[in-house]
Amino acid sequence: MPELRQDPVSQRWVIIATERAKRPSDFIHPQETKRGPDNCPFCAGKEKETPPEVLAFRDPDTAADTPGWKVRVVPNKFAALRPEGELQSKEQGIYRTLSGVGAHEVIIEHPEHHLFFPDYTTEHAALVLKAWRQRYLQLGQNPKLKYVQIFKNHGQIAGASLEHPHSQLIATPQVPAAVRAEMRRAQNYQDWRGRCIYCDILQAEETNGSRIIALNDNFLAFCPFASRFPFETWILPRNHQPTFGMVDDEQLSDLAFILKEVLGRLKRAVNDPPYNLILHTSPLREEEPAYHWHLELLPRLTIVAGFEWGTDMYINPTPPEAAVRFLLETPGPEEVETNG
Amino acid sequence: MPELRQDPVSQRWVIIATERAKRPSDFIHPQETKRGPDNCPFCAGKEKETPPEVLAFRDPDTAADTPGWKVRVVPNKFAALRPEGELQSKEQGIYRTLSGVGAHEVIIEHPEHHLFFPDYTTEHAALVLKAWRQRYLQLGQNPKLKYVQIFKNHGQIAGASLEHPHSQLIATPQVPAAVRAEMRRAQNYQDWRGRCIYCDILQAEETNGSRIIALNDNFLAFCPFASRFPFETWILPRNHQPTFGMVDDEQLSDLAFILKEVLGRLKRAVNDPPYNLILHTSPLREEEPAYHWHLELLPRLTIVAGFEWGTDMYINPTPPEAAVRFLLETPGPEEVETNG
Repeated sequence: MPELRQDPVSQRWVIIATERAKRPSDFIHPQETKRGPDNCPFCAGKEKETPPEVLAFRDPDTAADTPGWKVRVVPNKFAALRPEGELQSKEQGIYRTLSGVGAHEVIIEHPEHHLFFPDYTTEHAALVLKAWRQRYLQLGQNPKLKYVQIFKNHGQIAGASLEHPHSQLIATPQVPAAVRAEMRRAQNYQDWRGRCIYCDILQAEETNGSRIIALNDNFLAFCPFASRFPFETWILPRNHQPTFGMVDDEQLSDLAFILKEVLGRLKRAVNDPPYNLILHTSPLREEEPAYHWHLELLPRLTIVAGFEWGTDMYINPTPPEAAVRFLLETPGPEEVETNG
Repeated sequence: MPELRQDPVSQRWVIIATERAKRPSDFIHPQETKRGPDNCPFCAGKEKETPPEVLAFRDPDTAADTPGWKVRVVPNKFAALRPEGELQSKEQGIYRTLSGVGAHEVIIEHPEHHLFFPDYTTEHAALVLKAWRQRYLQLGQNPKLKYVQIFKNHGQIAGASLEHPHSQLIATPQVPAAVRAEMRRAQNYQDWRGRCIYCDILQAEETNGSRIIALNDNFLAFCPFASRFPFETWILPRNHQPTFGMVDDEQLSDLAFILKEVLGRLKRAVNDPPYNLILHTSPLREEEPAYHWHLELLPRLTIVAGFEWGTDMYINPTPPEAAVRFLLETPGPEEVETNG
């Protein structure tokens, strides 16, 4: 019989479907056609094809918007929101509008076109996360901005229109309703139990063990009990921390390491699938003490259709415990390299 | 400057993106490869390839599970949930599970493989909707079931694994959290204003006029003010009605007509795009008087990626007013036929 599982935070239900069960290996992804570095505006040497950089970690003695950078942040050329202009709210009868003030930036993660996040050195991966933190803190000083959404779309199906490794941030002039709801749920649990719901999840997962992909001093990566998607993975700081803005360098280094591990296993296990990686954190300048920031990794191997849109329930053909077993059985990069 | 618009029901924000603006004609969809009726288990004559029918509107003197039907409802062969078994709830520490009791049925809308909903006669389209209502009411008598989600996935990208025209229903043993939240929002507005929020939206749309696609005595179809997607369309009964279970035959006939109109315009305007059509209604046996059932049509022409998953905010490159103008300028079926 299929089993319904409820996510304790969102109270969202997931159907772990036995009748349409798929083995994890059924999700091995067909190779996407690579477009290659021709005409790529994010490659080293093409700095003039993007708007001027707002941040770069670069070699000493190299000028802005020239080669010599390791990680480079630029405004999105086709920005959904822009920093200029007044923030105006208007009511039109029952409806409400707000002028589109905000920011939309691209974090170009590496000068080389063909690299994947798991291929970076841990130091380089930590530099990418430092760029996230620095822009997050910088934009947090602008009183017009209320929330910063950092995310990474990988693969065309997951919305990456450019192939060169990059992540993005969009800063919004309003706290998104979904973020407010998540803060409220953490508050309610804190009021009711006197504890952080995510800290309780961490403890449950460490005790259970069957859904853990990786852990180190500062982070735990696991497939959540009510995984919506095959190989869905959450990465939580092991010590309570309300906002990503509070991470220190040691944590960033541990996060870089665990992200490389998780994304590397996923890439090797199901042949580089498309995914969205999404930061969940408190709104800017109103840190919710009950909240616990984290990353959610959503591989895009199943289709979200009418049932999911209507109910926010999901049909997951692969139990998270089976997904974890498959990820852990996948040979490490060394073993793959000796075969290749 | 881009504009943010807020949906009054969900309080969800949408960015109407001017920098990445697309004309409605940019969405004209590449033709999907048709697989054709070979091996299709839903075609007339293949009745033994599906589980036995639970409902059929068929010619007199024809036997169940033989040809002669107009609309036929069968359990999904690969059901996400099944009616057999006890409904058991279990707690595992912080987590909760429920046995997968429910129903998953397919409404085979027409014996012919190649027809689209807009091609049906209004009488036939009304028969499809009657099958929806009959199964909805029938399943509502089962005390183990709490919600019936009726939906139609059209096109592979929208999750239709079979091409033959069909819709589906999934009955769940728990009210989905998203449905509860929508009921609560309608209640809150009723408490605050003493009116139905959807009735207020209807009035605002009729007064404004620029987002209306079609209307008749019983229904209004319009692109919502805070459309998440290009050509997103909502179809509301013009008189307040909490649940789909209450619709009468006259309403079903008007709904059939307006659905044919809306889906026909969409098909002709952007070349048969993939879409999800989703019923929003009250939970079974606990009709929420403040709620107002309706259909939401979500064309799948843009990609939902990391930003949307993190915030439930959407970037829509086409204002709904422009989408409506384009739909209304599209020639009618007669004009297309004389050209073809």
